[in-house]
Amino acid sequence: MGIDPGLAIVGYGVIEYDGFRMKLIDYGAIYTPAKMRVPERLDILFDSMGKLMERFKPDAVAFEELFFTNNITTGINVAQARGVCMMAAFRKNQNLFEYTPLQVKQAVTGYGRAEKAQVQQMVKTILGLSAIPKPDDAADAVAVAICHAQTVNYRGLNKY
Amino acid sequence: MGIDPGLAIVGYGVIEYDGFRMKLIDYGAIYTPAKMRVPERLDILFDSMGKLMERFKPDAVAFEELFFTNNITTGINVAQARGVCMMAAFRKNQNLFEYTPLQVKQAVTGYGRAEKAQVQQMVKTILGLSAIPKPDDAADAVAVAICHAQTVNYRGLNKY
Repeated sequence: MGIDPGLAIVGYGVIEYDGFRMKLIDYGAIYTPAKMRVPERLDILFDSMGKLMERFKPDAVAFEELFFTNNITTGINVAQARGVCMMAAFRKNQNLFEYTPLQVKQAVTGYGRAEKAQVQQMVKTILGLSAIPKPDDAADAVAVAICHAQTVNYRGLNKY
Repeated sequence: MGIDPGLAIVGYGVIEYDGFRMKLIDYGAIYTPAKMRVPERLDILFDSMGKLMERFKPDAVAFEELFFTNNITTGINVAQARGVCMMAAFRKNQNLFEYTPLQVKQAVTGYGRAEKAQVQQMVKTILGLSAIPKPDDAADAVAVAICHAQTVNYRGLNKY
């Protein structure tokens, strides 16, 4: 399971990988209302992450590392949300991994400075989909899951 | 209850206020081991914050807002920890407040640019203590609690 964390939206993507082929199981996003107070939105993320973990029981959970923008308020909120999501996942499964945006791009497109659109196109191609997963956060989360699957395979951490 | 959030250490301070005098009830800190992985440390904070809330059942919980340093890694970790602490507190008590470091200094010393040592000295004086609470994070948390008590009193939000 790949996770693209945020306060307003958390993307998730679940794939299956047998060492040769990757298959998309599910993807989607958790949303929190902008008019709610931050602690309440974090509480929604905590509950929803727990439910996602119970529903899919993933072998591993991979999180995108924070990419820091110039907007400090957004950055703080994303980091706060990311802390809650990681902790919620950890309570259900201790097999957590982190990848930088560069690692994800490199794994999915072979090029660390690829554009967002290229990454999404490759997600579609690798998984043999008829369309790019929506919203963007879900597509990003699927890319993180692909990145983890390829990394595990390459490093031989898991033998299938 | 005032909270000074962090990943390695979370300070807390509990005071009682009748509209005239403030009394220190308790203070202390939650620590997480540096050698542990971040999600595990966040999990400790979640559990410990929940226990603190159950133990003291505070009327309100006040958090210090993030002061951003130049160290991005530290900043991300503090924000992640803060998100977990706020969410854990919110699950037990929805009466949450936030104050900037400037507001806390202003409330405690009357001067928004006061030095850390001046703030701690005033905490000791206001509460009639024989010594400054230790560690620093606990003293900071007590200062946040004082700031909230004074703000509530000034605004007349609570009538005693």
